[in-house]
Parts: sequence; C-alpha cells; structure tokens
Amino acid sequence: MRDKTAAMIVIGNEILSGKVADSNAVFLARELRGLGVSLERILVIPDDLDAIADAVREYQPKYDVVFTSGGVGPTHDDITISGIARGLGRRVVLHPEIESTIRRLVGDSINAAHLKMAEVPEGANVLFQLDQKFPIVQVDNIFILPGIPEIFREKLQALRSRLAVDPYFLRIVFLNAHESSIACFLDETLAAFPQLQLGSYPKLGDSEYRVRITLESKDEEYVNQALEHLVSKLPQGMIVRTE
Amino acid sequence: MRDKTAAMIVIGNEILSGKVADSNAVFLARELRGLGVSLERILVIPDDLDAIADAVREYQPKYDVVFTSGGVGPTHDDITISGIARGLGRRVVLHPEIESTIRRLVGDSINAAHLKMAEVPEGANVLFQLDQKFPIVQVDNIFILPGIPEIFREKLQALRSRLAVDPYFLRIVFLNAHESSIACFLDETLAAFPQLQLGSYPKLGDSEYRVRITLESKDEEYVNQALEHLVSKLPQGMIVRTE
Repeated sequence: MRDKTAAMIVIGNEILSGKVADSNAVFLARELRGLGVSLERILVIPDDLDAIADAVREYQPKYDVVFTSGGVGPTHDDITISGIARGLGRRVVLHPEIESTIRRLVGDSINAAHLKMAEVPEGANVLFQLDQKFPIVQVDNIFILPGIPEIFREKLQALRSRLAVDPYFLRIVFLNAHESSIACFLDETLAAFPQLQLGSYPKLGDSEYRVRITLESKDEEYVNQALEHLVSKLPQGMIVRTE
Repeated sequence: MRDKTAAMIVIGNEILSGKVADSNAVFLARELRGLGVSLERILVIPDDLDAIADAVREYQPKYDVVFTSGGVGPTHDDITISGIARGLGRRVVLHPEIESTIRRLVGDSINAAHLKMAEVPEGANVLFQLDQKFPIVQVDNIFILPGIPEIFREKLQALRSRLAVDPYFLRIVFLNAHESSIACFLDETLAAFPQLQLGSYPKLGDSEYRVRITLESKDEEYVNQALEHLVSKLPQGMIVRTE
C-alpha cells in the first residue's frame, strides 16, 4: 500500500518576518508521523491571495491531504479562505451553520468582522465537534486550520481518527563518533535493508553523544533486524545506547 | 527601490517526520528582517534529489537570494549538493581549496566520507572566514548552509554585510480586545496609510493582552504617524501599552 501523503501550507507574514516562531508545523509533523501519514512538504507563504491560490493549485491535486495553518481570523490580513477559493476556482460564501453559530454566540453586537468568520470556499464541509465552539472547515482534501497554536492542536487532534493509517516504528542509536567515520556502516546497512528509512543527525555540544542514528519502517520486525545488523557492524565502544 | 527578496529551502526528512524541530527558519527570518531583506518563502522538503532540484529550479531565478539548510554532511542522506547541481544543470566537482583544507585537518585517516564534504556544484564560490574551519559555499545566488543550528547561525552571521539593505521599523500596540471589535479600526488605518505593513495577532491565555498589533515600514516617520493615527481611533481603555 502506498503511504498516505500530506502537505502543509503555513500562511503568515508574521512567520516570514520572524515576529512569530511557528510551532504548528512540528506539531503536525509529529502527529502525522504517529498516524502513519507521510508529510512531504511544509511551505510558508505570505498573506497574499495569489501565493495562497498558487500553493493550493500545486498541492491540492498532488497530496492526499493538505493542511493550512493561519489567516482565518476576522481582520484585514486574514485572507486564507479567499485564497483557497481562488486556488480552487470557487466563490466565497457564508456557511449557514457557522453563521447561525456566530449569531447565537455574539448576539446583537454582531458586525462585519464577526460574519467574516462564517466565510468558506463554496462546497466546504464543516465538521462540528461536540466540545468546540467553532467547526473545522474542510474543502475537498484541504483542512483549513487556524494559526493560534492551542486551537490548531485541538482541531488537529479532533481529526486524528479520520487520518490514521498505520504507524512507523522508530529505533535510535546514539553514537560517540564523527559522521565521517560511520558513513560506511550506514551505507552497508542500507544495502542490506533497502526499505529502511535511515537518518544520521550530528549534535554539537552534547556530552552524551555526537551522532544520533534513526532507523524507521512500518514493519517492526524489519526495523529491529536492521538495528541488530547495524549494531553488529559498528566498532566496539562507539555505541552510547540504543532506544 | 524594490525590496531585496529571499527564499529558504530546508532539506530534511527529520523535520518532515517531526523528529527534529527546525530552528534555522525563524533565525534566518529574524536576521533577514533586521537586514531589510524580505523573506518570501520557506519550503521544507525531504532528502530527495528531485525535490531539491525542483525547488532550486523554481526559487533560484525568482528571488534575489536563496538559502538552503541541511543535507551537507558526509552520510548517505546528505544529498543537497547533488540536488542543487541537478537543479542548475551542473556537475558535482571536488573543490580544490576545500579538499586541501580537509586533507590538512584529517591527515592520513582521510576516507570517502571526508572527501564528500569537498563536493560542490560546478562553478561554486567558497567564502573562507578567518575564524571558521569550513567555508561557506555559494553557487549563483544560492548560499548552501548546514542544518546544525550552531553552524547555520555562525555562517549566516558571517554573511550579514553581504546581505544588508535597509531595515524595517517596527511599532507594536498591545490591546485588551477581541480582533472582531478592532478590525474596523485596522481597516481605517490601512486606508489612511496604504504602505503600512499591519499585522494582528491574537494571543490566548495571556493575562496582559489579547491582541498584538504590529505596524511596520522602512520609513520610520511613516510608521510613527500610523501608530499615532491608530491609537487616536481606538476606544479608550483598550490599549494596554505600545512599544
């Protein structure tokens, strides 16, 4: 079975200008990994209609699921809905269920900014969760999530059961060695286990280890055998510990 | 004068799988903002030759400067040099100056993994800094930086004087209000100051403020006048403080 694939589009001048450090991408990456979905791209773009539309046109047909983060509030710089609609060639419409929810929550003081929150690309589904005031908006295979980290996480967790495929199994070897002295053992292990996902990550200034080797596969037995193989090839004394 | 533009390509399965949280993007974003360079895209892609080549083909002609982060070590998953070379339609060659530096540092125990570190796309420049063992590799308008945060930062700081244009001026207003109740004042301020870069960022769970409004321009006088204008329009009591 082919892996289910995903891409993330992060929308926000505040991230490109360094005023805000995005934390949604790493959260999404970890969640998707745990669910067995392969995140293939993370793209950060400005609050710009054409940039959003272009990204949607490129990613929507290419990946099984696309997530957007940011740009869904009530102010002038919140243009994600319009950008996605443009990318899909759809109109922006008021979603009746969201509108009635907002009218109920806000009451008589409702204004244009409140109603902007009910806008969706035509044809969108809304997924109401029991414990959330505001629904998740989905159009085609795109989930439109807010940039505020607390809400992004809450909504993503509500989507878990829709996304789950089967997880990766991860083993780790911590080594006290330079990468250049172990490259040959990694190559040899990859030749013996060609389906293995093998990563090598040097760390500076850590007193415990110098390189972390990650071994991954959706087949638990396979990754364990590969670990055993690698450990048997590495020179004595290099291994700090395995996980 | 048109802003100098930049894009960043982050290369690494470890980031897409959530095993490592990238910190280079936000560092680059802040540095570039301080230098007056407009970062337009951050793209995270896997350790995949075609993905790297495609990103290079798209971004290299489009932006004034392109930075890559990651994939330049000696192991099997370090394929950034080959990917950039493929994107530019160049060969990979050993750079004589880097090679001789490595031979001097490593001595007789030199191996293929060490020499891999001397590979560059044909036509690359190397920028040796006095206090750094390893040079910065530049090919066309692409700076090829390592993913290890400490070294990424060190090299980027060494590039500062090459990149500087003129900085943005930033003012901030912290408000105790919902975004929906201030959207109209932001729109009005933008109408009066159309060149202003205006951002609105809600914060949950902060006892001091609910929304942070950022005002930016390369013209200090302009941004100060816009701030004064916005403050004069906002209802009394809403403003927590300005910066």
